[in-house]
Formats: sequence, structure tokens, C-alpha cells
Amino acid sequence: MFGTTMYAPGDVRHETVAEPIIEKPTDALIKLSASCICGSDLWPYRGANPITKPLRMGHEYCGVVVEVGAAVKTVKPGQFVVGSFVISDNICPHCRRGFQSSCEQREFMTGAQAQYARVPLADGTLLATEKPPAEDLIPSLLAVSDVLGTGWYAADAARVQPGSTVVVVGDGAVGLMGVLAAKQLGAARIIAMSRHKARQDLALDYGATDIVAERGDAGVARIKELTDRIGADSVLECVGTDESMKQALQVARPGSMIGYVGVPHGIQFDGASLFFTQVGMLGGPAPVRRFLPHLMELVLSRKINPGRVFDLALPLADVAEGYRAMDERRAIKTLLQV
Amino acid sequence: MFGTTMYAPGDVRHETVAEPIIEKPTDALIKLSASCICGSDLWPYRGANPITKPLRMGHEYCGVVVEVGAAVKTVKPGQFVVGSFVISDNICPHCRRGFQSSCEQREFMTGAQAQYARVPLADGTLLATEKPPAEDLIPSLLAVSDVLGTGWYAADAARVQPGSTVVVVGDGAVGLMGVLAAKQLGAARIIAMSRHKARQDLALDYGATDIVAERGDAGVARIKELTDRIGADSVLECVGTDESMKQALQVARPGSMIGYVGVPHGIQFDGASLFFTQVGMLGGPAPVRRFLPHLMELVLSRKINPGRVFDLALPLADVAEGYRAMDERRAIKTLLQV
Repeated sequence: MFGTTMYAPGDVRHETVAEPIIEKPTDALIKLSASCICGSDLWPYRGANPITKPLRMGHEYCGVVVEVGAAVKTVKPGQFVVGSFVISDNICPHCRRGFQSSCEQREFMTGAQAQYARVPLADGTLLATEKPPAEDLIPSLLAVSDVLGTGWYAADAARVQPGSTVVVVGDGAVGLMGVLAAKQLGAARIIAMSRHKARQDLALDYGATDIVAERGDAGVARIKELTDRIGADSVLECVGTDESMKQALQVARPGSMIGYVGVPHGIQFDGASLFFTQVGMLGGPAPVRRFLPHLMELVLSRKINPGRVFDLALPLADVAEGYRAMDERRAIKTLLQV
Repeated sequence: MFGTTMYAPGDVRHETVAEPIIEKPTDALIKLSASCICGSDLWPYRGANPITKPLRMGHEYCGVVVEVGAAVKTVKPGQFVVGSFVISDNICPHCRRGFQSSCEQREFMTGAQAQYARVPLADGTLLATEKPPAEDLIPSLLAVSDVLGTGWYAADAARVQPGSTVVVVGDGAVGLMGVLAAKQLGAARIIAMSRHKARQDLALDYGATDIVAERGDAGVARIKELTDRIGADSVLECVGTDESMKQALQVARPGSMIGYVGVPHGIQFDGASLFFTQVGMLGGPAPVRRFLPHLMELVLSRKINPGRVFDLALPLADVAEGYRAMDERRAIKTLLQV
């Protein structure tokens, strides 16, 4: 079958790879209905993470079960499933407390930019729909797997509540999903930081009430102005750089929470500064499995349309172009047709 | 009148100082019923904070109003009052959101290890009792002003809830108040880290269910053992050193919150580590004003007895010995009779 391998920064190849097989009785094999490229795939693509061996890429997925291991009980061949990008058993103490992304058996999904994929711990990771979904819902169901689930977790960790004032730092796909999540959770004011027209427009469509194009001190000043100098109740940090985290810290009011989901690269916090500015923080890989039932239901009932975040669709064979388009910010997020 | 001045590390003097006067129409003057020494007073005493000019010491207080400025409306001469160690107007946006310790007009109280003290922004900082309290309640009412309010905030920031498993790092007065707060908030399991018999006993009296005397890796291992390897739902960090914060981080389960109230000295957090361990954090100076009504009521109705944390009472004239006793850990907390 065909899959995707990253050999070095900038070197992503569509190539023949071994078909996955059931390795453990808790595994499932799925035929991908669609796959996609994640903003976090750009870290190694850009050389920010070392590549010590060829990487089988892809951790966002939905599709049809083709085979299950002997121990799998909750999904069966023929069912359409969505799963979290974090593999979890969904029964360990951390899973039971809603933090499946810190499961005692945590693994990160790989190899899903392909025709078929192996999903470990299928019972704890996957959720099946009652019937096969309409074709046009596939992009949105795919989005649930990571990008929507991650934006949702950012809003949840930042404790967005009805009436909240929210700032979203980062206009990538996760940031846009953060806007959608904040809207769904009842935020009254959603300020999206973005300098790109297409992303600004999508943010507004998803529920942003204000766009701030400025960055740095000017961005902070603008947000203080928009919030009567108070700052935000909740800040969603959806990038992971030192610069973006500083933005987040500077627009958060005392007693607020920053939900941070951009994988931190080179970020250090000074204890005394955090103390005296009195900003709360909770981040990490999103426990998408906690949100799967609710988010799949929102998609299936057509209450939300996260799939619009895919503004480029390419055949799997053109995956390299998909990476380039995202790297050059020509595309927000690339869907791969398999 | 007599007051307390710190001239240099280790050099605290009981001496004649100018009587405070009404400087602004929002001020009140109080005659202290009692004062005390705070663990945070030991930072400069031990040379951890620079002393650039003589410091008028004391920020915990309760007493009787003797004079108020023309603008003061809610307290009047003759009333018994308790106030927060953080001066606040209680009407700014941060105050209205319950973070009076980040008030737009925030000041920190000073000069309360004395016979009289000036309290700025009296309306936003003080709360009067309906009638003069019984003499034996004075220590507990004094405790509300900072040490209890701070322990309470640690538990609140760490989101202690009915049934929670809580670890308290630090067996100083604040840590012991954190135990009391966790108990009041319904925690099912309260693990106090302490190596000192007297403090262990008081922790148990205040509601601790377990004592862990080990520190470092051994302490972490013991807590993991006590919590079925899960870690705590809430951790109260009541010290402020790099070592104590590391303890807190290592015993916190994924998705938990650390409420940190020890003023951080030399603490840095690594973003990526915090991200992948998925521990939440909220700290800062305690917004005691938010908790004043509830905590004063708990004391006045004799439901709690935080005043037991004072295990040494000295005349104000012996303040220097009070500092020495706390510095040498001969006393948990020194009450000063004025």
C-alpha cells in the first residue's frame, strides 16, 4: 500500500510501505476514509525536532474497520470509526479522570497518512458511528480526531464559560478550532489574533467577535483596549513558541487561565512572574477521547462544521505538496484523499 | 508608639516609630489587637530578598478602628476589623472577579508589627464584625488576615473539591492552614509532607489523613504508593523554593492543579515538561478579601480554630526573639501581643 515517510526536514515522500497487520489482540486495522497533515507535522519538517530515523507520518484519522484483534470488543469490521491521535486504554486512572492523553499506556498514533493504519488499544481509542456517515461529513469527522479536539481542549483547559471573554493566540487550524469551541461553550467575546485575510474570515465565520492583526506590544495594547484594560478571562495558546506564549501571558487577566496546546518549543516560565501576574495555566496533548462522543454528535447533527478548516484537498500521492503548502502558509490545513 | 523595623538580614528592632496618621481620605487607623510574624518575613530576614532601606515590618493584622478618613463609609471608629494583607479597592474589575490581590490599586500592607497601623483603601480592604469578638478568638481572626486566607487560596486555586486527594507541600503555618482549608472544602484524603512532630500533630488535628516525612524521590515514591500510583488531584505548594516546587510537580497527577502560594524564589518551569506532564498551575498572592466574610464567619461560629497555628506568643517588645524562633524553626508562627 502507499504511505508517507519523512526522511529529513523538507523531505516527505509518498511511497510503498508495508501494510499494517494486527500485532496485538487489542489492535484494529482501519481503511482510511481521509487523512490530513497536522501543524505539528511541520515541527520536524522545519527542522525544529530532530529526525533520527525515517518517520511514518500521520496521526489524524477516521475510516472503516477492516480487522480487529481477538480482544477487541467495542468496534467491528465494517463500522466507521473516529479515534484520538493519542492512543489510550480509556480505563486507567488518568483516563477515568478525563485525561486520556496521559493514559498509563499512552502512545501517539503514527502512519495515518496512508491507505490503511493500525490503531492500538482500539477499544479505548476509537468510537464507532451508528451507521456510515454521509460523505460530506468526512472532513469534519476527521477534524474531530485531533485539530478540533485540540482546539476544544484549549478552551476547556482555559475554562471558557458562558459569557467569557476569550483571546485565541494563533490562527492556524487549531486556533480556528479554538474559536469554534469557545463559541460552542458560550463565550460572549472571542478575539482572534490573525494577520491573514482568509483565516480572519474563517475565524469570524466560526464565531470570533473581534480580529486583532497586531502582534507584540501593539497586539497586547489592542486587546487591552478591546477589554476595557482588563484582559481576557481565558486565553487559548495554539502555537507553542516563546513569542506566542508571551502574547498569551500578557493579555490574560489576573485569575484567568491559559489553555496551551501548541507543543512548547524553547519556552521557559519564570515562577515569580507567573506568581505576581496571577495567571493560571493548563496545557498538554488534548484528551480527545474525552470529547469524542460530544464532538462526533455535534458533527453528525450538523451543528458544527469544523471540516471547513481544510482549505486544500489533495490526493495522498501529492502529500509532499500538501506539506509545502502548509509550510508556506498557502494552506491552513491539507486534507489527503486516500 | 512602638513598631518593628528590619535594618538588615537578622537585624529586627523593636523601636519608637512615628504614629500613623490619616494620609488619604480612604485610610483608616486601627489599634492592633494582636499582630504576628509571617513566614514571608523570613525571606529578607535570611537575606533572600535585598533590603535597600529600613523596612517597617508586619502585614497581618486585626484590631479596633480609631479613626477613618472622610471618604470611608463601611467601617467606623470602635468597630473591630480584620483586613487582607493585600490592600484593595474591592471595586476594580480584578476585584470584582475575585482577584483582589491583583487589584488595580494593589498595595501590600506594612507596619502592622506595631501598636497602631494605617490601612489604606479601608472600604475595600477591611471587614468589621457585628460586635467585638471574644478575646480568645483574636488569634484566629488575626490568622484570617493572611496565613489562613493564603492556605485557603492555595486549596481554592488547586480546585480542592469534595472527595479530592490533596497533597500539601510545606509544614509551615501556611501549609497547616492549607490542610485546614482542604478539610473544610471536603477533601477525602489529605497528605501532609512534614518531618516535625509538632507540625505533624497539628496537621493531623486539622484534618490530614496521612503524613509523609520523606522528601525528594523518597517522598514522591511514598505519595505515589499512598495514591495507588495516581498522584494527587490537587497539590498545595506552600514554600516557594525550587525543591518544594519540584516535589509538587512530581506528585501531581495529569490534569491536576497546583495551587502555589509560597513566593517563588529561583523557580523556572520548562514549558515542554509542564505540557507533557499535563499539570495545571495557579498561584499568586492570596485574594484574602474574597474569603474574608466566609472565613471570619467560620471563626466567629467556632467551626474552625486556625489560631492554634500560633505556638509562640510574645510581647511586641520581644519581636526579635519571635523572628529568631521562627528562623530556627523553634516556633511555627509567633503571635505578638500589643
